[in-house]
Amino acid sequence: MKTPFVQRRRALLSRLGESRGKSRIDSLLITRPANWYYLTGFTGDSGALVVSRRGTTLITDGRFTSQAREETSGVRIVEQSRSLVAAVGEFLKGAGRGRVGFDPSHVTVGQLSSMRKAAGTRVGWAPSVGRVEALRSRKDAQELATMRRAAVLAGKVLEGALKLLKPGVRELEIAAEIEYQMRQLGATGPAFETIVAFGERSAYPHARAGAKRLRKNELVVLDLGAILAHYCSDITRTVVVGRASTKIRQWHQAVQEARAAAVGTVKAGASCGEVDAAARTVLAAHHLDRYFVHSTGHGLGLEVHEDPRVAKGQKQTLVPGNVITIEPGVYVPGVGGIRIEDDVVVHASNTEVLTRISRDLIEI
Amino acid sequence: MKTPFVQRRRALLSRLGESRGKSRIDSLLITRPANWYYLTGFTGDSGALVVSRRGTTLITDGRFTSQAREETSGVRIVEQSRSLVAAVGEFLKGAGRGRVGFDPSHVTVGQLSSMRKAAGTRVGWAPSVGRVEALRSRKDAQELATMRRAAVLAGKVLEGALKLLKPGVRELEIAAEIEYQMRQLGATGPAFETIVAFGERSAYPHARAGAKRLRKNELVVLDLGAILAHYCSDITRTVVVGRASTKIRQWHQAVQEARAAAVGTVKAGASCGEVDAAARTVLAAHHLDRYFVHSTGHGLGLEVHEDPRVAKGQKQTLVPGNVITIEPGVYVPGVGGIRIEDDVVVHASNTEVLTRISRDLIEI
Repeated sequence: MKTPFVQRRRALLSRLGESRGKSRIDSLLITRPANWYYLTGFTGDSGALVVSRRGTTLITDGRFTSQAREETSGVRIVEQSRSLVAAVGEFLKGAGRGRVGFDPSHVTVGQLSSMRKAAGTRVGWAPSVGRVEALRSRKDAQELATMRRAAVLAGKVLEGALKLLKPGVRELEIAAEIEYQMRQLGATGPAFETIVAFGERSAYPHARAGAKRLRKNELVVLDLGAILAHYCSDITRTVVVGRASTKIRQWHQAVQEARAAAVGTVKAGASCGEVDAAARTVLAAHHLDRYFVHSTGHGLGLEVHEDPRVAKGQKQTLVPGNVITIEPGVYVPGVGGIRIEDDVVVHASNTEVLTRISRDLIEI
Repeated sequence: MKTPFVQRRRALLSRLGESRGKSRIDSLLITRPANWYYLTGFTGDSGALVVSRRGTTLITDGRFTSQAREETSGVRIVEQSRSLVAAVGEFLKGAGRGRVGFDPSHVTVGQLSSMRKAAGTRVGWAPSVGRVEALRSRKDAQELATMRRAAVLAGKVLEGALKLLKPGVRELEIAAEIEYQMRQLGATGPAFETIVAFGERSAYPHARAGAKRLRKNELVVLDLGAILAHYCSDITRTVVVGRASTKIRQWHQAVQEARAAAVGTVKAGASCGEVDAAARTVLAAHHLDRYFVHSTGHGLGLEVHEDPRVAKGQKQTLVPGNVITIEPGVYVPGVGGIRIEDDVVVHASNTEVLTRISRDLIEI
């Protein structure tokens, strides 16, 4: 099977070639694991990749060199002898790599300082934001096929977990079962720490699963994602074990409507801010907008949070190949929270929802 | 129960008070989750903490403010309205926080630039490396008690996993069982992605568990850790399912000796470099040092890799309260790898090994 990596490096180089003047770049330094995986297939978690017209070089330590040789093709592997940053600096110096682009949001102040020192004054440094992320945000057909499977898998696991919800179970037990079942279905693991929140704890959007036991008539928020063949899914459902109060039903209905409005706004050419506003406007009509304390969604792919951000005021427009979450919620301190989250693909002429299990307020 | 957080903030402030001249700092900015948990008990994963003589402030977003109020005491909670970095900058500006220490290895180039801009010219910025990490590296009695339990738990899980090793099982299945059992025993989750590597794949020190099935007479490396009440454990054992060749036995024996030599060198006052050299010298005597491609160990605590580093040439000396891993290994590309890892506590007058299950080359 032809791997997509060479083609992606070519696409990156072609974009770098378009840079002119002060933003001209001869090499791009890549220090984020998801970015180097995307460009080379290397799955190690320590290293640095330098991409330039003169070739692609991966600098890593002795734990990863054999693995890197096996996983990559057309990539020169350099083993660092001391620290990674010193090795990167020395490589750039020796290679006469001219102006090096680096992403200021991935490189620490300390790393840049050490690399500059090791590279010497003949290497220039230019901030270059989100070059690989921009490519990654437009998924190709093969990536989308994988993400469909990852989303279906997450839905199955969630449906399975609902059957385990009985008064007396602990949040942690449900989280353990969820991650175990993911793997039984072929996932390499969870895309993030699985959220299982009962009762009042559901009012914390990012609650850690804890020792709390489920009581009758409590809200349950399940937020989980699986990594399947490197790609993430992310799904949330909210249910009640017992009977929901009228207020909870109304809130759930409002979140359902907000989700539908946001999904309805997703299309190529729409701005991320518009999608966010669609959810927020519905919640405002229900006087619940002040309880919606986070953004409507985020890009999804090799990482569980990636471009584009679907947040208030975001001007970035959606393009075909984007995969985003839509996850409005309402969180009332001391009472509980409700969130419904789906994964959505932007196509040229339609929108595809990957997570299709029921969104109703199930009363178990 | 009295929480240790106030006392830790006091210890930090007292150390900051000792800074003079160019290294003088009025406030310390803390952007690493393990560091703010250590100082406040806040378990959220987005925010920034500012500690100064005038008080402790946590800046975070709407997802975490209720949680932060519940988890912390004596900490002012500020909700960011836009980006975190803008909020931090504005807070420092408004508070007239003078010279702000930041850790260049935790702050990205982009974050520093945005914070500077928002804070204005009256706020000064001073690199200040590893202030909280230095405190964290000396565990108190309560922390050590928790880490003992975390280590025992990891040992139990590893012993349980050995029983599942039969020709035909996949690496991924074993990894899933390991993480499931951890949680059944009370862990909140794995401290890192569990490593299960069969046969030739064991030659990759950081192999991801994959679809490979176990064959008879293959090496198996199991490297796992559990998080229990926030603290990590980390243990590795290598076994053979079937019969080990003479060569494998010799290598395993050499790694055992290297481990014993390194553990024997651990004591208050010894340098980390000496401990590393002890393992390396033994492997050199067996002509295996070139196959030992990583450091001998690392600090362990709230994070699975923390201070001190037990690596070649490290001059830092061990002090009572340090908890480190000792994990020499031999990795022969195309053949396989062997690693044995224990967690060790430095006391004033003795060394305590937390991971006590058998280190023999078990043939299953």
